[in-house]
Amino acid sequence: MKKSALQIARAAYHPQLPIVLTGGVKMKEGEPTQSAGDQEEIKKLFPNTYGLPEIIFEKTSATGSAKPVNVGVILSGGQAPGGHNVISGLFDGIKHLHKDSKLYGFLMGPGGLVDHQYKELTADIIDEYRNTGGFDIIGSGRTKLETKEQFDKGLEILRELDITALVIIGGDDSNTNAAILAEYYKAIGAGVQVIGVPKTIDGDLKNNVIETSFGFDTATKVYSEVIGNIQRDCNSSKKYWHFIKLMGRSASHIALECALQCQPNVCIISEEVEAKDMTLEEVVDYIADAVVARSEQGLNYGVVLIPEGLIEFIPAVKKLIAELNDLLAAKASEFAEIASEDQRDWVISNLTPDCAATYQSLPAGVARQLTLDRDPHGNVQVSLIETEKLLSEMVGKRLEVLAAEGKYEGKYSTMHHFFGYEGRCADPSNFDANYCYGLGYTAACLIASGVTGYMSSLRNLTFAPVNWVAGGIPITMMMNMERRNGHVKPVIRKALVELDGAPFLKFAKQRDEWKVGTCYTYPGPIQYFGPAEICDQPSLTLVYEQKRRKY
Amino acid sequence: MKKSALQIARAAYHPQLPIVLTGGVKMKEGEPTQSAGDQEEIKKLFPNTYGLPEIIFEKTSATGSAKPVNVGVILSGGQAPGGHNVISGLFDGIKHLHKDSKLYGFLMGPGGLVDHQYKELTADIIDEYRNTGGFDIIGSGRTKLETKEQFDKGLEILRELDITALVIIGGDDSNTNAAILAEYYKAIGAGVQVIGVPKTIDGDLKNNVIETSFGFDTATKVYSEVIGNIQRDCNSSKKYWHFIKLMGRSASHIALECALQCQPNVCIISEEVEAKDMTLEEVVDYIADAVVARSEQGLNYGVVLIPEGLIEFIPAVKKLIAELNDLLAAKASEFAEIASEDQRDWVISNLTPDCAATYQSLPAGVARQLTLDRDPHGNVQVSLIETEKLLSEMVGKRLEVLAAEGKYEGKYSTMHHFFGYEGRCADPSNFDANYCYGLGYTAACLIASGVTGYMSSLRNLTFAPVNWVAGGIPITMMMNMERRNGHVKPVIRKALVELDGAPFLKFAKQRDEWKVGTCYTYPGPIQYFGPAEICDQPSLTLVYEQKRRKY
Repeated sequence: MKKSALQIARAAYHPQLPIVLTGGVKMKEGEPTQSAGDQEEIKKLFPNTYGLPEIIFEKTSATGSAKPVNVGVILSGGQAPGGHNVISGLFDGIKHLHKDSKLYGFLMGPGGLVDHQYKELTADIIDEYRNTGGFDIIGSGRTKLETKEQFDKGLEILRELDITALVIIGGDDSNTNAAILAEYYKAIGAGVQVIGVPKTIDGDLKNNVIETSFGFDTATKVYSEVIGNIQRDCNSSKKYWHFIKLMGRSASHIALECALQCQPNVCIISEEVEAKDMTLEEVVDYIADAVVARSEQGLNYGVVLIPEGLIEFIPAVKKLIAELNDLLAAKASEFAEIASEDQRDWVISNLTPDCAATYQSLPAGVARQLTLDRDPHGNVQVSLIETEKLLSEMVGKRLEVLAAEGKYEGKYSTMHHFFGYEGRCADPSNFDANYCYGLGYTAACLIASGVTGYMSSLRNLTFAPVNWVAGGIPITMMMNMERRNGHVKPVIRKALVELDGAPFLKFAKQRDEWKVGTCYTYPGPIQYFGPAEICDQPSLTLVYEQKRRKY
Repeated sequence: MKKSALQIARAAYHPQLPIVLTGGVKMKEGEPTQSAGDQEEIKKLFPNTYGLPEIIFEKTSATGSAKPVNVGVILSGGQAPGGHNVISGLFDGIKHLHKDSKLYGFLMGPGGLVDHQYKELTADIIDEYRNTGGFDIIGSGRTKLETKEQFDKGLEILRELDITALVIIGGDDSNTNAAILAEYYKAIGAGVQVIGVPKTIDGDLKNNVIETSFGFDTATKVYSEVIGNIQRDCNSSKKYWHFIKLMGRSASHIALECALQCQPNVCIISEEVEAKDMTLEEVVDYIADAVVARSEQGLNYGVVLIPEGLIEFIPAVKKLIAELNDLLAAKASEFAEIASEDQRDWVISNLTPDCAATYQSLPAGVARQLTLDRDPHGNVQVSLIETEKLLSEMVGKRLEVLAAEGKYEGKYSTMHHFFGYEGRCADPSNFDANYCYGLGYTAACLIASGVTGYMSSLRNLTFAPVNWVAGGIPITMMMNMERRNGHVKPVIRKALVELDGAPFLKFAKQRDEWKVGTCYTYPGPIQYFGPAEICDQPSLTLVYEQKRRKY
């Protein structure tokens, strides 16, 4: 592998550890905890790992461990910048405990545990991946660890390798499953601790004890860089409206952070659309209003940010999709007989009036996509819908109507972008490099402390890393019961954008000005070597959220 | 405007000037020059500006000018990183000549000269834009300065503002027109010098006297950053083939530079496709071969780079497009009568057998696009064709055939990207910041020297900026006669990728290894503040080209 100059330089970067982790640590336990909701049910499901205390580490002179520990690590789900640093922090942490400790990586996600695919991560391998993006050190995968069979199969290889602790780096689902696995291994006396690490660029794994998930910082900075560049482009040529879709299906944190960083003309927040029960037409009207308002000032250009999951947050569209799923499942053979040119009418006549109206409002291409492209379960494949094109086309139609009414005289040309894969494997920002390394190192401390069912935790993140507070949070503390795929399950509550939260309120206060004025900010590329105000700033979401939170 | 931390820090950056420009300069003239081709015809068309000598500036103790000079500046065509630095270098240069010199910017491109739209660029304005991306200081536009009426109209405002020199920052077309304008103003004794500056991210404005155009360095670094990130992503999840289209319609320099930086599995070079007279099927087979070869090693993922202009370089497709343009123009009314479901058959029956076969080989959507979407002149809109999707779909079809023959057993899932607008307005790299500032400053020196019809020039660009050689190149020296839009015209010869040039040969030597192996390099984001080997490296294209060139 030919390394770039930046790869070589970053390999030498020493992540900053919280001062408390720079020597020996001792564990300080807080009060017993409760789950976020449904306490009785969660308690019943997790008899061995419920109600554990929060843990904070404090400095002590004692250091190291009498005997080595063998640890397994798994990267679960979509990539996020910094995963390699979690692993290198974990490696350094267990080596600090005892020089003969060993780290095994299970390959291609949780499936590697079940299928016994692994490799030992030696110092040479670890050094190749320090401070780099990607999950390529051991790969990642989306297999869900959910069944007793998987747990037992995993235990075979854990025993074979004498692994007594497993670190699962993943999002809310993977950490939920880590808690279930911890409970199971504890219940059967397997002698394997399970520790989770909060990962996801989407930023939806956070709560009053987890300040942020890793990767969000870097990914949003990469997206903000290219959004800023596009803003500067459209402010130079002054002839295009750019519709930019951003990754994040379940929550709009990414779009919101990018909006705070870049100050585009329009940013749609899915959670607000849902809360206000907006129709697709209302979203379209909102954007068209911005286009009209700017055109009245001679500004026939702009930038619109759209969260990837928007379409599923629009109540009417959500209802339409559900009804289409039912209809096409129930009348699959009848539908298959309909000639393609008659399908549209057939669908309309078989839907309830509300849904039929929503269906008719969609551009023909999207409507066709909703009935034709279905996943193996027969469901509409929402992720295939190019929401950015859908909206720009519908805005164009709306503008035609307004023009015919004499209410719009501007020009309207559009460009489309989708940013997601560009940011998931970027080299971690200094923030994520430090945060991840610290999370991995803290996981090693949790292992040394003998606990299980905990998530590695660093807090006080808007301060310099030396001041960060390291500890562990019982995963059950973040859980409640929710309906997922037709079953009520214990899950970690997903953090959506709070409409009364500081980041959204900051945005809401300024967006009218951004809409008509041209208030673009250009963040530029992530910097690693310059002054702290450029290189070491956390996301604005974190800064605004933490300002009002006492720790 | 709220500035980002990076914007604020970069505003304070002092571009490095060649040592020769740091005091007074004197002009050293070389031998009279000849045009690149068609010397007799070019000489006849440019009687007043043909055969001028190359100019090199040398240091002298004398400095400044007896009287102030008023200069006009125009940004022409697509944006390129560094345009603002050309303007700030020009501003500082003419202020160095005399503190009362004035700089006027014509707004929204060459049209601003003709329509008398301008603003004076004062020190306050200039300081706001130093080292920033974009052309937003005065905007850009694509009006072509070609006619006597435009020249005369422009002269009115130049006289009104007492402007005696005009700097045109643009690509090959704009510099061709700058030469024509210089010749015209000289011929009529207008007393206005015209100086060109070589701009284009496409990298196709270069020759044996112009080493590179500005913006290419930064834009390719932005694209390489995100391509690298995508490579790391696909190397982590190991499940997608990413088809990435890159800006650059006329030449493949951008794709080639990104390939040299990132080492993707496949990169198509349009110039090679044309030289080898490859069919679309052969291009598809070439990519499919890579997919099959990798799948045989269990690698069902990869990255393919595609230059935006590819489709027009495939001789058979080029011929088809030309024939379709003629056919649909000649039989427009007949075609309009054909029912949409019969159009395909009608088109096939009206094409020559070769073109009909090419047409039939295209996916239905692309074929429809070729007949339906036409520009105001009735021509097929090639730029609307999503070449990245066209190729990935055709590769998929090819793989189905191979699978049926038992020659392919892999999985094939695809993702598509197009990078262009993301890079055109990025903050200029240190290289482009220095190069552009120097080009602008050199333009001021050319103005002080009283010459016209020259392009501002800096050479020795792979050395540190202090060692760069500053001077001027007669624009006619780069010209030859070519057929463009049906007319034979004097134009600057466009630089395509040379298949016997060092950059392509470097690529060609390694590509077989990159195809099957996974040899990805991850350049990461542009850095401004770190060690020189990260922050100050010119493009590999420039490095490889200059290695074999003596200066």
